[in-house]
Amino acid sequence: MYQRVALIGLGLIASSMAHAMRAGGLVGEIVGHAKSAETRAVALTLFCDRVTETAAEAVQGADLVVLCVPVGAMEAIAAEIAPHLKPGAVVTDVGSVKQAVVDAVAPHLPEGVHFIPGHPLAGTEYSGPRSGFATLFQNRWWLLTPLPDTDAVALARLRSLLEAMGANVDEMDVARHDLVLAVVSHTPHLIAYTMVGVADHMRRVSAQEVIKYSASGFRDFTRIAASDPTMWRDVFLTNKDAVLDILGRFAEELFSLQRAIRMGDGEHLHAYFTRTREIRRGIIEAGQDTAVPDFGRAGPPSKGV
Amino acid sequence: MYQRVALIGLGLIASSMAHAMRAGGLVGEIVGHAKSAETRAVALTLFCDRVTETAAEAVQGADLVVLCVPVGAMEAIAAEIAPHLKPGAVVTDVGSVKQAVVDAVAPHLPEGVHFIPGHPLAGTEYSGPRSGFATLFQNRWWLLTPLPDTDAVALARLRSLLEAMGANVDEMDVARHDLVLAVVSHTPHLIAYTMVGVADHMRRVSAQEVIKYSASGFRDFTRIAASDPTMWRDVFLTNKDAVLDILGRFAEELFSLQRAIRMGDGEHLHAYFTRTREIRRGIIEAGQDTAVPDFGRAGPPSKGV
Repeated sequence: MYQRVALIGLGLIASSMAHAMRAGGLVGEIVGHAKSAETRAVALTLFCDRVTETAAEAVQGADLVVLCVPVGAMEAIAAEIAPHLKPGAVVTDVGSVKQAVVDAVAPHLPEGVHFIPGHPLAGTEYSGPRSGFATLFQNRWWLLTPLPDTDAVALARLRSLLEAMGANVDEMDVARHDLVLAVVSHTPHLIAYTMVGVADHMRRVSAQEVIKYSASGFRDFTRIAASDPTMWRDVFLTNKDAVLDILGRFAEELFSLQRAIRMGDGEHLHAYFTRTREIRRGIIEAGQDTAVPDFGRAGPPSKGV
Repeated sequence: MYQRVALIGLGLIASSMAHAMRAGGLVGEIVGHAKSAETRAVALTLFCDRVTETAAEAVQGADLVVLCVPVGAMEAIAAEIAPHLKPGAVVTDVGSVKQAVVDAVAPHLPEGVHFIPGHPLAGTEYSGPRSGFATLFQNRWWLLTPLPDTDAVALARLRSLLEAMGANVDEMDVARHDLVLAVVSHTPHLIAYTMVGVADHMRRVSAQEVIKYSASGFRDFTRIAASDPTMWRDVFLTNKDAVLDILGRFAEELFSLQRAIRMGDGEHLHAYFTRTREIRRGIIEAGQDTAVPDFGRAGPPSKGV
């Protein structure tokens, strides 16, 4: 058990971690730091035992330091806290990109501090210190990307805490993480943002019509296109190569379908749409989604599937 | 009240209509026809009073005929049933595209039969006669696209039935329907199919990894990419012009974001992602989606939003 945990950045993930750690009695003191005085005040009321004006103060004496700031802010924080870290402390982060975080943070950390990059695959469309809740990580993946020299004991201890918060922990190579996430998360988010942007720019179809009839497909794009803009800007800027690679493939596939529509090639379209059904079945079978129609948005149906 | 309703095609929509009409005691006899003998047998057990081997037999004496076949099959059905329609009968359909259905069906229908094209904005990722349930249309839009000479009394009678099944009925011009749906439904579906196809084709990321980590964004695309392949093939082939128009805009927007990523233009990305958040807020405020994190897939959170 960690006696003192420092959370740097107090948004959705940090506040959910604090709620989960408190609910389970998993750690000793929870110290928090955020740039904004207002955020610190909210955090002190809702989930921190103590807040500090600087990140440097927050990490003093902490056994575990969790960097919960956007990826683009990691380097400055690492440089600031490095001289104040307790020997033997574990430093982890929750960034959606891992190579960029390793490059930004690792060079600053002193010997004897254990850096274990991490990424919880959990979130909602909300952000800020009021958006957290204790069950956010229940049954969600939390990926750790240990470095070649990561201490096995420090790693096991961090794993235990994350599992106690309800997460399923997987270990993964840093580069593989960034490629896999480009496919399953980063590129889908960019595409969702794009589709919502197209609807927003249409002059001939009103925003009111788009909103009114959104349940016919568009709606599913908007939830993921409503996530924190700063976080996502940093994701795309720092996982650039993998995202551009997948986007290139996406454009090729889209053009082949667009051409099939233009040429009236029904066979091509039908074969394509049949293959994509299989992936959906795999997701349901793997327990990664519910088969309830419409995700149970409108309550369970009286009958059926 | 219609004394006899004929459902032509017995998939998700027809079976849900039959369940809803029976549950509410809204009509007299429900007669069904489907090409497949197996489908007819299931329908007879679950929701039809009678099934027939041909569409022509099914419509005999019916006050209301509902065409629930894929858009590409409408013309042949219209030609087959036309000589057998009862004078004064109402013919409607549930196709996702309306101009193509009007072109395919209207020329075949005799004088004295009222054709009122329709489109329920409701569905699940399941298809077939076992997938229907009585509450599918509850609080969903059902768009009607009456023609200039549509009889007002016949229209009012059809509206009443649809509203009794729980739907919110809106009337819309045929061409406007096809454009609005291209934005809110058809193009989002094509994009979702494409993204799922990209993941399927990746050699360096396994299908297992895609499925395992799908909750981080990809999952939301797979539900809409799992819908009936035949139906969607016909949608894209018959609403070609509007879909190609929106796809062109989508490609332009996507390239502008892709360029911003390549050039490291964080300001452009941040501004874009901030705008798209507004549309999401509009959808929640209009009651077209729930604000429950993750649509309540994992049950309500213990605390928070």
